[in-house]
Amino acid sequence: MTAANFTCPIPIEQYPTVLLAHGGGGKLMQQLITKMFAPTFTVAGQNPTHHDSVALTMPPGRIAFTTDSYVIQPLFFPGGDIGSLAIHGTVNDLAMSGARPLYLSVGFILEEGLPMKTLWYIVQSMQRAARRAGVRIVTGDTKVVDRGKGDGIFINTSGVGVIEHPYDISPTSVCPGDAILLSGDLGRHGIAIMAKREGLNFETTIKSDSAPVHEPVLQMLKAGIEIHCLRDLTRGGLGSALNEIAAGAGVAIQVEEALISIPPDVQGACEILGLDPLYVANEGRFIAIVPFHCAEQALKILRHYHPEAECIGTVVGRSDRTLGRVTLQSRIGAGRLLDLLSGEQLPRIC
Amino acid sequence: MTAANFTCPIPIEQYPTVLLAHGGGGKLMQQLITKMFAPTFTVAGQNPTHHDSVALTMPPGRIAFTTDSYVIQPLFFPGGDIGSLAIHGTVNDLAMSGARPLYLSVGFILEEGLPMKTLWYIVQSMQRAARRAGVRIVTGDTKVVDRGKGDGIFINTSGVGVIEHPYDISPTSVCPGDAILLSGDLGRHGIAIMAKREGLNFETTIKSDSAPVHEPVLQMLKAGIEIHCLRDLTRGGLGSALNEIAAGAGVAIQVEEALISIPPDVQGACEILGLDPLYVANEGRFIAIVPFHCAEQALKILRHYHPEAECIGTVVGRSDRTLGRVTLQSRIGAGRLLDLLSGEQLPRIC
Repeated sequence: MTAANFTCPIPIEQYPTVLLAHGGGGKLMQQLITKMFAPTFTVAGQNPTHHDSVALTMPPGRIAFTTDSYVIQPLFFPGGDIGSLAIHGTVNDLAMSGARPLYLSVGFILEEGLPMKTLWYIVQSMQRAARRAGVRIVTGDTKVVDRGKGDGIFINTSGVGVIEHPYDISPTSVCPGDAILLSGDLGRHGIAIMAKREGLNFETTIKSDSAPVHEPVLQMLKAGIEIHCLRDLTRGGLGSALNEIAAGAGVAIQVEEALISIPPDVQGACEILGLDPLYVANEGRFIAIVPFHCAEQALKILRHYHPEAECIGTVVGRSDRTLGRVTLQSRIGAGRLLDLLSGEQLPRIC
Repeated sequence: MTAANFTCPIPIEQYPTVLLAHGGGGKLMQQLITKMFAPTFTVAGQNPTHHDSVALTMPPGRIAFTTDSYVIQPLFFPGGDIGSLAIHGTVNDLAMSGARPLYLSVGFILEEGLPMKTLWYIVQSMQRAARRAGVRIVTGDTKVVDRGKGDGIFINTSGVGVIEHPYDISPTSVCPGDAILLSGDLGRHGIAIMAKREGLNFETTIKSDSAPVHEPVLQMLKAGIEIHCLRDLTRGGLGSALNEIAAGAGVAIQVEEALISIPPDVQGACEILGLDPLYVANEGRFIAIVPFHCAEQALKILRHYHPEAECIGTVVGRSDRTLGRVTLQSRIGAGRLLDLLSGEQLPRIC
């Protein structure tokens, strides 16, 4: 957190909070861009915010393109904040195409009255997260809405990356017999947010798992593993992701409860809060669906990053009766259907 | 507006308004994506919203990348709505790099309680605007915030395009002697919004100029014109754009008031409202800075789209004393400084 101690480049005494004029296209907006955003996000002398759009030279390959808006509350939570989350989330969406994330855009929607220090903290957090993930913030936009018409800060990050592999990583590539690998333990992000929001105190602070996941994906591809499908386990968690893939691929999926790692403190919190950890959001976990014969090698790579990574199940077939169905084999051997929830367990989790 | 009469694909009786659950990653969000967004935005059987990110094959060339969030109020105005604006604005940002706009992403931040019909109208308007501009909406994201924490709907659109010319279109390419071309008349968008917001009635309804501008830009490039700089005249209008370019290029700029076309009804409204039309936002106008010897040819192309297009001034030099200065020669011959405004004249204009 050292970098967060840098003095705010906007004079706080003069502008303690964000004003409507900071989004108006005049001097105050220019000040915000040239003093806060540009120097913080700039790499190697490039100024990312002086133009309407930025010209980029891409390495050869298809490109991946994605967008996500972040409206999480609270803005700061154990293990991260809206800024780092906005970087990790979009990096991870690119990674889910097997792409190497390269460039991000940042669109801020600020509410009049947001403390300037809060914005500064978030901007620095984004910069650190981007640097660690090896991506560059190259273009941006700032809007300010009147007090009571927003909620402090919303952030959109869009991203482009390069796809250097030849595969079609999508549900349509999923085949019966494929192995379903889970990249780590489940439930930390959703429970960290919920605990902070509800003021719950557990013996240990549960930290969000928010982190970039492109490295294990690129390592699997580098090792020659033909990945059929990838999905990060954000809103809706593992349960929703498996349902979407089963429906999209026209297959049935079977997973084993005993193989899914859920930290005891997350499990405990879920019991208190009445939540099913299989539907709780994660921000640094994903599933990889790979041909069965690659599973062991892929798992070895995943475990290098998280020892809890596990092969949790298989794609079981394409009969009409079970199409789109996701079954969980419980610890005591009984099977239960994992359905798509109708709404969310936890609103504004990302 | 015919397409807007299609029946809303979400049953309005059951879901008359957007619920928090529509952003929760469960069944309701899936319904919104698969029934409303995907079929409307889909082209040629491609489903844009089933994956975290989309894989795109780009034509050879550098790529342009941009982002913009739209928070305009009111959502509907003469000449457009937040949906068409969100398409035109981002298409135009790409055009300002001289890029051919190709793909857009859409990020919705919806407020709980937004009428489902309003969302449906806006989605259809985006689809029509995208089709007319020749761009495809290929990926998206939907978030819902609690009532009172948003303002109906905010839209982020990010875009990628391909740069097929060899130039560096930016303030740093601007040279003394260059001609400054304005693509049409000024002030329609800002005044249309202001009139609607304030309930002002003029003899004729002033319509926003919101429109895509990539075609005239691509035509100029096709004709071999070496464009030095482009800037669309959105927030802050012509006055702010000229100031930013003068400062970025380290030059002085001189323009002539008599050559700048302002429609009489816009001029009249500005006088009533106490606004300077040179700082009012436009959403379909831009300036092109080109070598003096290309000005006539470029102007001919611009006038094909808007007969009011005009060469309004020149880049006058790089002396230390005048660096960054923008001077307006008034109709009576006097010069006045066009400075950067401190805030905005009109908040939430885009």
